[in-house]
Amino acid sequence: MKACGIIVEYNPFHNGHNYHAKKARELSKADVVVAVMSGNFLQRGEPAIIDKWMRANEALQNGVDLVVELPIQWSLQSADYFARGGILLLQALKCESYCFGTDVASEFDYQAFGKFVKENQKTINQTFQQLSNPTMSYAQTMTEVYRELYPQLLLTGEQPNHVLGLTYAQENAQYTNPMTSIPLPRVGASYHSKEIHNEIASATAIRKAIIEGLLVEQVVPQQTTSDLQAYQITWNNYWEFLKYRIIISSVDELREIYQMVEGLEYRLKSLIYEANSFEEFVQAVKTKRYTQTRIQRLLCYVLLNIKTSDIKEAWESNYLHVLGFTENGQRYLKEKKAVIDYPVLSKIGKKEEQAYKLTVRSDKVYQMGNPLILEQNFGKFPIRSNPL
Amino acid sequence: MKACGIIVEYNPFHNGHNYHAKKARELSKADVVVAVMSGNFLQRGEPAIIDKWMRANEALQNGVDLVVELPIQWSLQSADYFARGGILLLQALKCESYCFGTDVASEFDYQAFGKFVKENQKTINQTFQQLSNPTMSYAQTMTEVYRELYPQLLLTGEQPNHVLGLTYAQENAQYTNPMTSIPLPRVGASYHSKEIHNEIASATAIRKAIIEGLLVEQVVPQQTTSDLQAYQITWNNYWEFLKYRIIISSVDELREIYQMVEGLEYRLKSLIYEANSFEEFVQAVKTKRYTQTRIQRLLCYVLLNIKTSDIKEAWESNYLHVLGFTENGQRYLKEKKAVIDYPVLSKIGKKEEQAYKLTVRSDKVYQMGNPLILEQNFGKFPIRSNPL
Repeated sequence: MKACGIIVEYNPFHNGHNYHAKKARELSKADVVVAVMSGNFLQRGEPAIIDKWMRANEALQNGVDLVVELPIQWSLQSADYFARGGILLLQALKCESYCFGTDVASEFDYQAFGKFVKENQKTINQTFQQLSNPTMSYAQTMTEVYRELYPQLLLTGEQPNHVLGLTYAQENAQYTNPMTSIPLPRVGASYHSKEIHNEIASATAIRKAIIEGLLVEQVVPQQTTSDLQAYQITWNNYWEFLKYRIIISSVDELREIYQMVEGLEYRLKSLIYEANSFEEFVQAVKTKRYTQTRIQRLLCYVLLNIKTSDIKEAWESNYLHVLGFTENGQRYLKEKKAVIDYPVLSKIGKKEEQAYKLTVRSDKVYQMGNPLILEQNFGKFPIRSNPL
Repeated sequence: MKACGIIVEYNPFHNGHNYHAKKARELSKADVVVAVMSGNFLQRGEPAIIDKWMRANEALQNGVDLVVELPIQWSLQSADYFARGGILLLQALKCESYCFGTDVASEFDYQAFGKFVKENQKTINQTFQQLSNPTMSYAQTMTEVYRELYPQLLLTGEQPNHVLGLTYAQENAQYTNPMTSIPLPRVGASYHSKEIHNEIASATAIRKAIIEGLLVEQVVPQQTTSDLQAYQITWNNYWEFLKYRIIISSVDELREIYQMVEGLEYRLKSLIYEANSFEEFVQAVKTKRYTQTRIQRLLCYVLLNIKTSDIKEAWESNYLHVLGFTENGQRYLKEKKAVIDYPVLSKIGKKEEQAYKLTVRSDKVYQMGNPLILEQNFGKFPIRSNPL
């Protein structure tokens, strides 16, 4: 059997994701579509609007055959590490290709770019050193580097999907057997678009609409509509915990948190008393150098007490936590069992809980955001879905 | 001017406390009654039902002339340290006598007992070593020690005020100029009595009645009745924070907490997921050796992130934080200014906040228990009270 991989967050699953899964199958001519999906804490430094099991279920009912969790050490990360984790798990799952959305209309050759980076890493690093300066974020500096070394990228600074695609390509190029990369031009809505006009809208627009109490039935499948009636999680659900955590911690303790650099711990301590909401706090803490997303991720690490050593330890132990499959997905998993790179977790008992502890602990905090959120790991089995 | 000191918690201030203040003045023939009062976290390991400013105000309107805060490093402690801190501050404030409630009816000579302990410390320590065994708490062992060495104590194990009185006496005897001790037999209600019958009821009974929604006007002064209408704090207000805190902390981190001994950190970690309330959790954690109060104090330290080093540091820097005074109380403070042992804090600005940081930080957490609790330290001045 042949698989095409996709790297996703599904926050929540919408019609655009359905289109993506369908096109992935069609363009790759694969038997199964395998999704590596962020768990309950997402790339842009926020909790998922509904839990990972609900989001996996939505996917399985709408074109995806197998959903494996992208654990927190990879999901709650800048684009680089997010891509690294996603590609790592798709490679481990023996996908032959991967399909991703892009906001570049032209026929850009991602695979060629990946190869270029692999072969010119030294020059890239040197140029990065030269161009690096304290007023620019990492992403901004990298953009400048590629403007110089690979001008055909045509980076405008407003194509997050294209940038993510480039990162996938770089990661994929590092493997002995790179997967075939299948870019899929986005339709209907740009990534950050905040309005809903037709059947396809961005997840950002959908979350905004939900929070404003608007109906989103037009742009999401039925399962998502029904799931969203249970609860909707935002950072607000954790604001009191975050505030409490910053109040009780010394600057020395905060300094141990992953990505707490350049005295940010003092900023957190001094600004926490004045903010009346998470929103206000982030606005107060962020600077030119530290974007909102970067700060939000940092605040997730603080909330979840994630230290550099926790991340490094988790990076060393990779597992494939299966959230669910269709019959086809299960068949694929069985067939590849012997060649898959990492242990497959299809049930989390006491032993597996220990192996997977960073995600388990974080999910416990996620659960505290709303009494309706169920246990996320212990005793859970993969969803078996048989869509019509 | 002459002062009589009292060591109190006022949780909340009731008619029995009013009687205590009146009798203290009468029996001591002092010009002022000086109360050293626990701040927002109390001896039995719980948050105060209303904040320290409200409780100080109640006292000032009902027979007390000066209220000084017993800070958290002394208030949230076993009877020994609680007494040590209370006597320390009364000594610092140059009180000539101190008056305390006792549940022993006979004319017991506390001062003589204090002297005996001072002069026989070595024998007491040796006997303690001999009798000590892992199934008994510290208090139980001490009871056995005194049964042997000072049988006239007549300890029954059910006289918490008598035991506290003994501890005051021991502490007081250590000073060059011990204060005169004035025991006051309790009237109307035993310490732990849970029923309200007449004008005087125990604070325990009053809190129970309040939580059950009963009227307590009969047993508390008017100011207390009106204060209790604002809010009533219990451990329940902090249960979610405590649970979150235990979930995110590793056993290594919990082990750094003050009084976390003999693997209690593992008990906390393993029992936290099953408990549905603070009550349930305490019941699950407590053992024969670790009483409910002991565990509740430990959980306060966990909630407030108080480490052994924090306590030791705070013990080294003593301040007299004035919560309020009557005209008479203020006059006393002025007169004694030059001879008072520790710095008097009558306003907490940025500088004083640093000096008083353990209490300030704990009060910030206390404040998170209810949005109606006002700022507790920064920018606060002593209450000036002129009761009729």
